[in-house]
Amino acid sequence: MHGSDYDSAIRHWASVVGPENVVTSTPQLIAAETGTFATGHRIPAIVRPANRSEVQECMRVANRWNVPVYPISSGRNWGYGSRVPASDGCALLDLGRMNQILDFDENLGYVTVEPGVTQAQLQAFLAGRQSRLWMDSTGASPHCSLIGNAVERGFGHTPYGDHFAHTCDLEIVLPQGEVMETGFGRYPGAKASPVYRWGVGPILDGLFSQSNYGVVTRMTLWLMPAPEYFQAYYFKCASEEGLPDLIDALRPLRMNGTIRSSSHIANDYKVLSALEQYPWAQSAGQTPLAGPLMQKFRKELRIGAWNGSGALYGTRAQVKEARRLLREALKGKVQDLQFLDDRKLEMASRYAGLYQRLTGWNLRRTLAVLRPVYGLMKGIPTEHPLASTYWRKRTPPPAQMDPDRDGCGLLWCSPVAPNDGSHAVRISGIASDVLLRAGFEPAISMTVLTDRTLSCIISLAYDRDIPGEDEKAMACYYELLDRLARDGYHSYRLSVGAMSAMGEDGVYRDVLQSL
Amino acid sequence: MHGSDYDSAIRHWASVVGPENVVTSTPQLIAAETGTFATGHRIPAIVRPANRSEVQECMRVANRWNVPVYPISSGRNWGYGSRVPASDGCALLDLGRMNQILDFDENLGYVTVEPGVTQAQLQAFLAGRQSRLWMDSTGASPHCSLIGNAVERGFGHTPYGDHFAHTCDLEIVLPQGEVMETGFGRYPGAKASPVYRWGVGPILDGLFSQSNYGVVTRMTLWLMPAPEYFQAYYFKCASEEGLPDLIDALRPLRMNGTIRSSSHIANDYKVLSALEQYPWAQSAGQTPLAGPLMQKFRKELRIGAWNGSGALYGTRAQVKEARRLLREALKGKVQDLQFLDDRKLEMASRYAGLYQRLTGWNLRRTLAVLRPVYGLMKGIPTEHPLASTYWRKRTPPPAQMDPDRDGCGLLWCSPVAPNDGSHAVRISGIASDVLLRAGFEPAISMTVLTDRTLSCIISLAYDRDIPGEDEKAMACYYELLDRLARDGYHSYRLSVGAMSAMGEDGVYRDVLQSL
Repeated sequence: MHGSDYDSAIRHWASVVGPENVVTSTPQLIAAETGTFATGHRIPAIVRPANRSEVQECMRVANRWNVPVYPISSGRNWGYGSRVPASDGCALLDLGRMNQILDFDENLGYVTVEPGVTQAQLQAFLAGRQSRLWMDSTGASPHCSLIGNAVERGFGHTPYGDHFAHTCDLEIVLPQGEVMETGFGRYPGAKASPVYRWGVGPILDGLFSQSNYGVVTRMTLWLMPAPEYFQAYYFKCASEEGLPDLIDALRPLRMNGTIRSSSHIANDYKVLSALEQYPWAQSAGQTPLAGPLMQKFRKELRIGAWNGSGALYGTRAQVKEARRLLREALKGKVQDLQFLDDRKLEMASRYAGLYQRLTGWNLRRTLAVLRPVYGLMKGIPTEHPLASTYWRKRTPPPAQMDPDRDGCGLLWCSPVAPNDGSHAVRISGIASDVLLRAGFEPAISMTVLTDRTLSCIISLAYDRDIPGEDEKAMACYYELLDRLARDGYHSYRLSVGAMSAMGEDGVYRDVLQSL
Repeated sequence: MHGSDYDSAIRHWASVVGPENVVTSTPQLIAAETGTFATGHRIPAIVRPANRSEVQECMRVANRWNVPVYPISSGRNWGYGSRVPASDGCALLDLGRMNQILDFDENLGYVTVEPGVTQAQLQAFLAGRQSRLWMDSTGASPHCSLIGNAVERGFGHTPYGDHFAHTCDLEIVLPQGEVMETGFGRYPGAKASPVYRWGVGPILDGLFSQSNYGVVTRMTLWLMPAPEYFQAYYFKCASEEGLPDLIDALRPLRMNGTIRSSSHIANDYKVLSALEQYPWAQSAGQTPLAGPLMQKFRKELRIGAWNGSGALYGTRAQVKEARRLLREALKGKVQDLQFLDDRKLEMASRYAGLYQRLTGWNLRRTLAVLRPVYGLMKGIPTEHPLASTYWRKRTPPPAQMDPDRDGCGLLWCSPVAPNDGSHAVRISGIASDVLLRAGFEPAISMTVLTDRTLSCIISLAYDRDIPGEDEKAMACYYELLDRLARDGYHSYRLSVGAMSAMGEDGVYRDVLQSL
């Protein structure tokens, strides 16, 4: 940034947060500048405040010396940019040390947290209190920040899957260092702050989501009461062509409240990359994976063209009726509709060996994939999906996975469509076409995020250690964004730097800039 | 406003919308300046644009001649200010002529409307198409604007009761005359605009709710699919003391999704004022109504201290299970838990006369009150609750009710509290104390608006034709706001002019002012 005095800023930050909390060593900065795709933005320093007043001071210092800052909570925004700031020369404001759980209410079902609080931390907190509340977890990692994911509008798989929709009562440090609270939170002692989103007067929460108007230093998240009974369901659809009927069959059940959570529908590539790494040997090094070899995997691993999962929550009678309605709706549209509860899962684990001897199906391997997905539907965080970022690597994922460090290439494109089969087909078609032509596997998931929307994630996984792949992948990502946008499908979340490629409309941009 | 050139503005508005759509006649202006409580704000003109581009031109004219404008949709913001602007000298921008239904989707369940579209109009539209979708209706009047109510964050009684939460895709004319769309609407041809709230980047919708940052000229409202089966429930609680247990018993059912809509709990005064006008003769002209006379009405009309209603939506089996759970939860906490469906209601109407002869209970009168409430839970608009604004009048409500014209005094105070019995008791206690001491009847309803919140409406009804009552009522309203705020209960919606009384926090106000 023109006129930025980095040295002065760094010196003053050190006096605010202590020199040990201002990182300027080259290896650490380079690590922070490294995401899962090519980015050119340099980071002059990482500043780690311990509390809100240090954040305020840090912002004042940033202002005084004209240094832009980019807040991160856990820095695990994989597929969209990891820790890398949206523009060059931003200091990272790393909020990871602010990891207090500030408030909790078992009856009203909420928890108030700082940005450094992770999914695993909340899970442990709830377990420690023998709480009857469930959190909602995103699939990325147990070490992801709850606030970070919510402000980016990430999602999970319980009835509280739309994260931003289940938050309120934000505390924000504004660019000049002042503190603001949203909703009723601005009235000291307001009883409804942690439970009511709207407050009175204009609603400002949305301004601080996917934005750089302020640093969110506190947020209340709502938690769902554990149901009396939980049952997951799984199904497959053998042919690609079955997708639209499947989506259209699920919609009425979602809209009438029978299905309260997000059904998740993944294509064969998505499931395969969760199970295995790229079959370099069997493909003799050829990419992309397609044709007979892919058919072979489908058959061997019992993967459908589309593979669905979801869950039912309620009393036993409520779940039973939902199961009846789901069976009825999916009849003739899917194969292998299975229902699984805690008892069945326990049995399956116990008898997996026997089962394989009898049927030849490696149930243990299936369970290894199935269990994390099952857990996610109960809000339990998992590291498992992270392994798929190693899809194209030549070595297996290490025990301590770190896609940024390990040169895993990953770009996520996340178009949102109306919850209607015809749109699902079109998005899948575009993604398959663009990615396969560019030499990548189109791993696609479609999540029925709300009653009316499909949130699609198209993963573009590659190996950053292969020269030329970064450029190829990025070109493919932009072509995909463009092709989807031309058909009216826009992404709910963009990788750092992609905002300008979206052809922002004039007035909206003007309003944003004036804020 | 300093430097406003009203004459020039009015002349130019006339050239934009046609002279017949600029109202400056004194009787019409006086009517528009008249709400259900004392207001001093003068209106120089009423301007009635026919479409968005006329709104844009009107805003440009307003800017040029420095005349503030106050948009109204149907002007039925009764209890909060009717058509009266929030400050003096504002021209009314009456959007009533913009009454087109612009888009509709039966499968995805939405309708896109202009601000002049009323509840009755949407109801007729849906009926005309034999749609299987239900709207959600607020209780005020069939002629209320859908957009007007949603931007003010009004509510109704179906699962879509929180109106603002079920909208997206706003089109807004900004103060300088530019047009902006929220969510994905800013991308031409975006398929998910009418179904997905958040779009990409910062979310701006909330800025245009309860605000004066722009004129909402279009909005998409979500509509719920009609359930296979509908059943309403009603109950009473004979003693005041039963309230907290009742609220606490309902909360888990609401939080776990068994009850999907807002239960509505009204005190004896609220029910009585829906049934009758003030008993001037029986009370020998004394106010407020209390003591033995109130006890007599309770007994005679079978009114509880608290009276609840709500509904169950689903398949027959889903409703049956919900009914079982509700019975179990309310056991020993309420009296006369009754379930009513279309067939039972029909039977009751048919045999009301016989029933009265057998039991002495005037079922017909009960049904007259019950039917509109029953309808509201199915989203059917009704004029019925409007009659209660005539509570303190000496003459019965006319066939064409108009509380503004008829000198009905009404001030609504609407504190929001956590969905917890202890808060319900405190709010009820404060309201009863403040209103009775001031000589008014504390008519209170508590709506379980969301899983975690009670939205209370305290109605202060009086007769504006009695000298001194306006002042007495306003003093009482401000005392009530103040007493509630001191205990941490803030209103979600304020009467025009009351915002300044709320003691706005500095930073929040600064941010709002900078926008």
